[in-house]
Amino acid sequence: MIPQKGSAEDLTSTAVEQKIAEQPALSNGHPNFHSNGANGASTLPGLDASKLIITRADPTVRPVPDEATACSGTETICTDHMITCSWSISTGWSAPELKPYGPLTLMPTASVLHYATECFEGLKAYRGYDGRLRLFRPDLNAKRMLMSTLRISLPGFDPAELEKLILALVAVDGPKWLPRSRPGSFLYLRPAVIGTQPQLGVQAPKEALLFVTASFMARLDAPSGGMRLHTNPDDMIRAWVGGFGYAKVGANYGPSLLATNAARERGFGQILWLYGPEGYCTEAGASNFFVVWRTKGPEGRLQLVTAPLDDKLILDGVTRRSVVELAREKLAGELEVVERKYTIDEVIEANKEGRLVEAFAAGTAYFICPVSQIRHRDYDVHIPMVKGESGQYTSKIKGWISDIMYGNVQHPWGVVVDEQQ
Amino acid sequence: MIPQKGSAEDLTSTAVEQKIAEQPALSNGHPNFHSNGANGASTLPGLDASKLIITRADPTVRPVPDEATACSGTETICTDHMITCSWSISTGWSAPELKPYGPLTLMPTASVLHYATECFEGLKAYRGYDGRLRLFRPDLNAKRMLMSTLRISLPGFDPAELEKLILALVAVDGPKWLPRSRPGSFLYLRPAVIGTQPQLGVQAPKEALLFVTASFMARLDAPSGGMRLHTNPDDMIRAWVGGFGYAKVGANYGPSLLATNAARERGFGQILWLYGPEGYCTEAGASNFFVVWRTKGPEGRLQLVTAPLDDKLILDGVTRRSVVELAREKLAGELEVVERKYTIDEVIEANKEGRLVEAFAAGTAYFICPVSQIRHRDYDVHIPMVKGESGQYTSKIKGWISDIMYGNVQHPWGVVVDEQQ
Repeated sequence: MIPQKGSAEDLTSTAVEQKIAEQPALSNGHPNFHSNGANGASTLPGLDASKLIITRADPTVRPVPDEATACSGTETICTDHMITCSWSISTGWSAPELKPYGPLTLMPTASVLHYATECFEGLKAYRGYDGRLRLFRPDLNAKRMLMSTLRISLPGFDPAELEKLILALVAVDGPKWLPRSRPGSFLYLRPAVIGTQPQLGVQAPKEALLFVTASFMARLDAPSGGMRLHTNPDDMIRAWVGGFGYAKVGANYGPSLLATNAARERGFGQILWLYGPEGYCTEAGASNFFVVWRTKGPEGRLQLVTAPLDDKLILDGVTRRSVVELAREKLAGELEVVERKYTIDEVIEANKEGRLVEAFAAGTAYFICPVSQIRHRDYDVHIPMVKGESGQYTSKIKGWISDIMYGNVQHPWGVVVDEQQ
Repeated sequence: MIPQKGSAEDLTSTAVEQKIAEQPALSNGHPNFHSNGANGASTLPGLDASKLIITRADPTVRPVPDEATACSGTETICTDHMITCSWSISTGWSAPELKPYGPLTLMPTASVLHYATECFEGLKAYRGYDGRLRLFRPDLNAKRMLMSTLRISLPGFDPAELEKLILALVAVDGPKWLPRSRPGSFLYLRPAVIGTQPQLGVQAPKEALLFVTASFMARLDAPSGGMRLHTNPDDMIRAWVGGFGYAKVGANYGPSLLATNAARERGFGQILWLYGPEGYCTEAGASNFFVVWRTKGPEGRLQLVTAPLDDKLILDGVTRRSVVELAREKLAGELEVVERKYTIDEVIEANKEGRLVEAFAAGTAYFICPVSQIRHRDYDVHIPMVKGESGQYTSKIKGWISDIMYGNVQHPWGVVVDEQQ
């Protein structure tokens, strides 16, 4: 949709919100409607899971590795199939395909290889203790993917159709790759959209590819001794107000690797990304970050604190949102949930005064991962661990979410996959 | 090289400078030395142009398009060959290849497709009026490429070897694709490095690919009526202090497309990227930006002003640097060259007071492109054009650089290619 001429806001990130509102599932618009940042609306075919073309892989070609070796190599092991769907500005979205997993072919001039016209999502499929296979709130991932896609000037789509495609892949590959004999385990699902137009001009791609893979990923939520964080150096920040820290675009990740590597060489797991001269705590690596502390003063109220979303510095994490919602529901009266800006100095002060109770990272990859240490400049914050593991609130919250994921409780957030047997 | 434990600076962008200093051509170190952000030094094979393996394309397969149609399609037309060279952390740089231009094969899990582990360069090969083929200061592109590569946690190399590989490609494809019958024309050269490791963990890639293509690109330096700029909206900025605006990494480009597209829909060519509440002028689209103005007061000295490099917000452009150096040399006494922070309000004030003389964008793609208008919020700066074209200083500087590129003068910046006939 061509922005209306008028205020400067039309040029801005609010343009993304406008474009999201224009997508069919959210606006009840024309079902074939899609839009692209460069080129406005059209009535070309939209993403449509009902058109899925299925080409089965030979199931004997790719064996399922045992759990010990599934993540031990330098290459991610994917399942038998992947979803792909191409788009062009002149023909819209093609019929999606579920087909044997294999390489992509891109011209050396493809947009994604030069201009980071790429975004992705991460979610998991969980084999429940009840034998069923579930996704966790996949609608949130699909909607965020649409937002990221539009932010990076790739074509829009109906997020409900993406969700159906993800479910289709899991339905086909789940029974073999996440067998009932492995309750409590998961596969990692990676939807992505990339700009494929073979054109070196710096412009919104006129061709794109959406794809979804399912793969093994190591469990990262219980590192020995807890996650150790190092704050970023003063002269390297992850995201900024007016940037794109809230979108899951590739451009947030590659540039962060240098600081992360240096921190790892010092024995730390991730960077705690601070923002601004005040040193606001934002994200821990590529996860959201939470602390539990007691407020100052005689009353000493317990608070679960995390950075807010309104300045668009951080990702609106599905795990983050679930933590906030569950803690508000289940810990009401016991612990207050606060989304606000807070600084590393506040964390250090709480630590010095014995008010810092727990800290954890929250995200799909690291799930709920207890944090045991934060190094900021020359100061070390050591955070209490119970028996070398999570603190009690971290454990409780993790347990509640885990129960939903693995079917120990029935909950609307746990979306059961109708597996093809 | 593992950073020394010590100050926080070891974790930062100064790490890039350390790594650059470790490269062989710049440090006189071991010739096979290379390093990678994740993994420190090794003595595995470095990038070595003397190992180039040449596989010739059938020259009848790809015809050279006429100049009118070479850039008219939605796909960049490349020459017969490309350079590729793969790297892995366990085997170092492979022997580079010069081979028929064609698609790349990447796994869907390749790092570059998800985390923007990618960087590139842009330079041109010029067919001179003296019949010879030249590059313009390719050593600067090669060195900047090394800096960008290390900033994005891809493997280092000797920039002199990259320069040799670029020259090899132009030597082979120049005679056919940039024939002597087309003096005053150019090919666009695009070296790039991408992370190819098929691994979804957020980490420095353990496999990478360097490639170089040569292609047609439209002339962009003389848009009808001059380049029209629109300042960025308040809530969207290109780069930030502590970020990576100085590196030619993909992550600087994709996120800028949304604002650029919206500006184009309003009839503007590029965004003039302002920074901070002060509104400092930084870049014009993906080019550097210059203004010529007279200072206030009775003396009214002429100044050529452009943003400084020291805060690392902007690219250290080869054209920018050449403009600064030539203007200092050839316009001494007539015009003062100033690299300093300056705001859009200063530009507007100069315009209102009749002191604004000229403005232009400077870069490889747009070369020296006169700017005729800047819209900032509701205010339009109209910049004088001479007969609808460049102002006199813009024309003079453009002429000097063009003369070097196209061999009207012999100059060390014009590197003659030894063509294979």
